[in-house]
Amino acid sequence: MKATVTRKVSFNSAHRLYNPKWDIETNDRIFGLCNNPNYHGHNYDLFVKVRGEIDNDTGYVMDLKVLKDLTDEIICSRFDHANLNLDIPEFNQEIGGLNPTAENVAKVCWDLLRPHLDSKLQLWVVLYETPRNFVEYDGQ
Amino acid sequence: MKATVTRKVSFNSAHRLYNPKWDIETNDRIFGLCNNPNYHGHNYDLFVKVRGEIDNDTGYVMDLKVLKDLTDEIICSRFDHANLNLDIPEFNQEIGGLNPTAENVAKVCWDLLRPHLDSKLQLWVVLYETPRNFVEYDGQ
Amino acid sequence: MKATVTRKVSFNSAHRLYNPKWDIETNDRIFGLCNNPNYHGHNYDLFVKVRGEIDNDTGYVMDLKVLKDLTDEIICSRFDHANLNLDIPEFNQEIGGLNPTAENVAKVCWDLLRPHLDSKLQLWVVLYETPRNFVEYDGQ
Amino acid sequence: MKATVTRKVSFNSAHRLYNPKWDIETNDRIFGLCNNPNYHGHNYDLFVKVRGEIDNDTGYVMDLKVLKDLTDEIICSRFDHANLNLDIPEFNQEIGGLNPTAENVAKVCWDLLRPHLDSKLQLWVVLYETPRNFVEYDGQ
Amino acid sequence: MKATVTRKVSFNSAHRLYNPKWDIETNDRIFGLCNNPNYHGHNYDLFVKVRGEIDNDTGYVMDLKVLKDLTDEIICSRFDHANLNLDIPEFNQEIGGLNPTAENVAKVCWDLLRPHLDSKLQLWVVLYETPRNFVEYDGQ
Amino acid sequence: MKATVTRKVSFNSAHRLYNPKWDIETNDRIFGLCNNPNYHGHNYDLFVKVRGEIDNDTGYVMDLKVLKDLTDEIICSRFDHANLNLDIPEFNQEIGGLNPTAENVAKVCWDLLRPHLDSKLQLWVVLYETPRNFVEYDGQ
Repeated sequence: MKATVTRKVSFNSAHRLYNPKWDIETNDRIFGLCNNPNYHGHNYDLFVKVRGEIDNDTGYVMDLKVLKDLTDEIICSRFDHANLNLDIPEFNQEIGGLNPTAENVAKVCWDLLRPHLDSKLQLWVVLYETPRNFVEYDGQ
Repeated sequence: MKATVTRKVSFNSAHRLYNPKWDIETNDRIFGLCNNPNYHGHNYDLFVKVRGEIDNDTGYVMDLKVLKDLTDEIICSRFDHANLNLDIPEFNQEIGGLNPTAENVAKVCWDLLRPHLDSKLQLWVVLYETPRNFVEYDGQ
Repeated sequence: MKATVTRKVSFNSAHRLYNPKWDIETNDRIFGLCNNPNYHGHNYDLFVKVRGEIDNDTGYVMDLKVLKDLTDEIICSRFDHANLNLDIPEFNQEIGGLNPTAENVAKVCWDLLRPHLDSKLQLWVVLYETPRNFVEYDGQ
Repeated sequence: MKATVTRKVSFNSAHRLYNPKWDIETNDRIFGLCNNPNYHGHNYDLFVKVRGEIDNDTGYVMDLKVLKDLTDEIICSRFDHANLNLDIPEFNQEIGGLNPTAENVAKVCWDLLRPHLDSKLQLWVVLYETPRNFVEYDGQ
Repeated sequence: MKATVTRKVSFNSAHRLYNPKWDIETNDRIFGLCNNPNYHGHNYDLFVKVRGEIDNDTGYVMDLKVLKDLTDEIICSRFDHANLNLDIPEFNQEIGGLNPTAENVAKVCWDLLRPHLDSKLQLWVVLYETPRNFVEYDGQ
Repeated sequence: MKATVTRKVSFNSAHRLYNPKWDIETNDRIFGLCNNPNYHGHNYDLFVKVRGEIDNDTGYVMDLKVLKDLTDEIICSRFDHANLNLDIPEFNQEIGGLNPTAENVAKVCWDLLRPHLDSKLQLWVVLYETPRNFVEYDGQ
């Protein structure tokens, strides 16, 4: 018997969207207000979803306390109250990082979590940038 | 690398559920209070979901601002502060429209949006009629 | 020792805003889309708030189950799945009713509930027309 | 044309997590605070999701009022204001019941509902134990 | 210049409502399902509200991190995953505690917090027992 | 007859908390992570509340569409996707601005709105920095 368990966590971060290969006009045209060079920010809500067998002895797919502590350690303690572009190498485009769109923040969260989970477990993440804009990523 | 992006929009509308081929008693039995001939109404929340490749240059599956503007133009500007049965031909059963159940409102939203999106993108919609009643439709 | 207890209830209704003493142009200018003669609608959330002494024997200001049943009987069973203008005399302007703005719907709810509550209890209501628009009324 | 309809219901219950085959130390290590022998509790939100064909005559996959009444009768009237371990045989481990983890509560809800739904309809459930912890179960 | 700052915290607890001076029939009549002797439970949300001068040097009425840590220590660490009647002396009616209605839980939270706050600060609390039932208490 | 009407708006901004008169150690001790020199950010929700007489002709205290447009023009169009410290003079401490704590952001919003409202109307604002932290300000 399989089930999917989800833990919601949150982090508050600044970011800016731009492509360093483009000139200012192109960045403004594509990213609009999100390209403010002084940054803006969001309260991000991250839902970490894990699917697997329900263990007969515990009744758990995975202890959500363990999933929370793992996510806090790997993601929230790094991303919360940070500037994604400046403080998180994965989003520093000067050194090959990704533009911190919601899609790419979700992808980086997934990439960071995947190695820490049992390979029998499926993983996907849902990232809310605002209550009206959100992204799902499952590694495929 | 694929991701799913979602934009939430809202519209406030009146509607009435009934089948013009049935008599009053049958309509009352099937649709109950929803068959009030004077109409009732809802704050509808529509989640438009699009799945596709994350673009390498933008980090976007699709610019959610573009998706919002498209949805506002095609759906919200028509449905908001409208009577679905009387003001929206797709739900006018006198001229072959559909009964505006949540299922059919979701289907019509999907049908309206689909032609405007790149054929490489998957589309589905989630329509909340109330916070306790909602419907998902993916065109299949 | 006093406390304030609140019970949230909901009703889904159609309505139209207009002043029958004004011509169409004035009504359109003042009420805009809300003046659609075919009506539009909302999921209304009503918070009924009662302040009074905490009873020593029950630990209650007032049993919230009793407050819920009273509100369901007096308000929700009448307003839910109704057209406020056509089905609820309090909002039928042909017979002296009020224009069903959020302010007036809140006032009517308060006026309907007040006679049923002990005079030692203070009453006020909060009415959400949408999650972004709401009104408070306390009878003063 | 298929759609998925969802109805949200709620119940407030006490529970305790433990495995009667383990000693106290092991139960405390695995279940932590959730193993309080005096119980703790939650406001559970249950989303019942049904997928099937949209009926041409009604515009419904299934009348959500019928789905609500069924769920109230089979689940909410039994689980609400109950102690899951003591009052609900499905979670009484003395008589072969399951440990009432969110996973197992979701599974039991699904098992209880499945026989009452048309075999052409797909069923899954989402159970929120808290706004930050939830579980999905689809019978597979 | 004064402002009011609010911090929301949560705890999940079991409880039972009854008056030990009454017989079973009276308790059932007054408290209904809430008098289940096996207990039921809730996800409580507590909003702690403090009003005072905005400090010129910090721009704070009070550091909300300090308010959170104080509330966690004094309330959440004791009430979370607890049985209010059995584990919290303030609600043990055998030893003079209060019946754990929402009103009384709010009052006890206020009484516990008040001595730890500067006397220049006003304090009140809002306690949600469910999203539809909540109570405010200000010590008066 | 008086009522209070509320309109909720949102803006997403970066900010940093610090006092330029203090050294780094003091700022870190007082403001902790909020003193990240690279900024962090939030989705701010602002509730603008106006109390006044219900107009007999319109049934409005104030047209919430007018209140929304005013707030968008004066606050949201300036604060949204901005860095409060760098882009908004009211929070630039180099030129006498205020430290952008939630208290001070609420105060500045109130100060900006007050001159645009009829002096017969009372005004207060509620600013959510996160769903768990919020501030109310009424000009007193």
